[in-house]
Amino acid sequence: MSIAVETQLSSTEDLKRVVGYKAVDDYVHSGMVVGLGTGSTAYYAIERLGQKLQEGSLCDVVGIPTSTKTENQAKSLHIPLVTLDTHPVVDVAIDGADEVDKYLNLVKGRGGSLFREKMIEAEARKLVVIVDESKLVEGLGMTGAVPVEVTPFCWKHTLRRLLGVECLAECNVSATIRREKGNIYVTDNNNYIVDLFLDRPIPDIFLAARQISEIVGVVEHGIFLNMANLCIVSGKEGTRVIERKC
Amino acid sequence: MSIAVETQLSSTEDLKRVVGYKAVDDYVHSGMVVGLGTGSTAYYAIERLGQKLQEGSLCDVVGIPTSTKTENQAKSLHIPLVTLDTHPVVDVAIDGADEVDKYLNLVKGRGGSLFREKMIEAEARKLVVIVDESKLVEGLGMTGAVPVEVTPFCWKHTLRRLLGVECLAECNVSATIRREKGNIYVTDNNNYIVDLFLDRPIPDIFLAARQISEIVGVVEHGIFLNMANLCIVSGKEGTRVIERKC
Repeated sequence: MSIAVETQLSSTEDLKRVVGYKAVDDYVHSGMVVGLGTGSTAYYAIERLGQKLQEGSLCDVVGIPTSTKTENQAKSLHIPLVTLDTHPVVDVAIDGADEVDKYLNLVKGRGGSLFREKMIEAEARKLVVIVDESKLVEGLGMTGAVPVEVTPFCWKHTLRRLLGVECLAECNVSATIRREKGNIYVTDNNNYIVDLFLDRPIPDIFLAARQISEIVGVVEHGIFLNMANLCIVSGKEGTRVIERKC
Repeated sequence: MSIAVETQLSSTEDLKRVVGYKAVDDYVHSGMVVGLGTGSTAYYAIERLGQKLQEGSLCDVVGIPTSTKTENQAKSLHIPLVTLDTHPVVDVAIDGADEVDKYLNLVKGRGGSLFREKMIEAEARKLVVIVDESKLVEGLGMTGAVPVEVTPFCWKHTLRRLLGVECLAECNVSATIRREKGNIYVTDNNNYIVDLFLDRPIPDIFLAARQISEIVGVVEHGIFLNMANLCIVSGKEGTRVIERKC
């Protein structure tokens, strides 16, 4: 029996569900404004929030969705939704991440919603990141793309400028425009995404963030610095919480 | 007769024409890729370029327009047009400015085209700014708006964040969303513009530029630093060229 349970808990979906549920159970209280992340792990947090509002163990909670996809899921669960325009203070935001380093700096945006995620989570009094242990890394930028949202106007030029970011010179950067079913992928903001691929971790993540931001065609990038307050990590051996040291 | 000439030369349109024509006559040579600015002064530079290509005193010149308005003017004059995607090196760019300080730092964008202007002019080997003397200022940010291009998503929130830019705290910032005929003005990139108004010059222009850029909803701002190489200024007493001291 214990083997069966362990097998069940180690499935990827179970690991995601565990942290999604725990984030809502431990950090969302009645009356809060909650930033709702996007992606396959945040999905379970939203599911749990819907359940708890439905059953009445939470009330007076409003959500701010970080994507149209999340907005649709939240609507289907009857979670009341608002925006930053009317609710500029977010009590807690819950979201997944593509990579998390030991300082809780993040790479996000492989799902395509980095802009709205960053805008909303930047306003959160507490950002709770939920991941399975495969997302923990020593240095950021190696397990997949570092996504950058760019304006459609002259995107090829912007892509070339991204290839030339000075502080990434030793990382053998390559870059592709993101596509979906053959067409260029379009974000919720009607922009494009350039995915950067590196062959070693970003040496100075703060400098890289600044140099990427300074390129004129860049709208926002998927490097989230000093934003996450804590990270709930699930793995085969259980769940733990990492807090950011300030 | 000399009085008549002086009166003629001091009309605003004449002052604009003088610098527009001079910029093309002195800095555009055959074979060049030329960034074509936007606005009532750049208009005359484009007019002159069209004339010289037509009469054959310039050849093999291609232009990169900084707005759809400029694109339309250039097309009407049969100036061959390209983009940064295919021509990433711009030999010279010519554009007006709303304000110019003694270091040739600029405020631009009151005409609404700051994003494309900045993208293209950032690639120019030489940026020639053309203004009449009313645009010369001691400190930037006082003669009108400091425009900021923002994403439509949650623009009210972004506007509030702009009001809170730390290094502008002593400038009594006010901010409005730009409108045109009652509707929100939409840029060539389908974004909005927030106009900032200050009651004293920006104290630290480099810090202000960085703090404005760091706001998530900001796409680009109208503060152009270390970009202009020279400025042609026309006034009632004639025309002079100011070079940037490096």
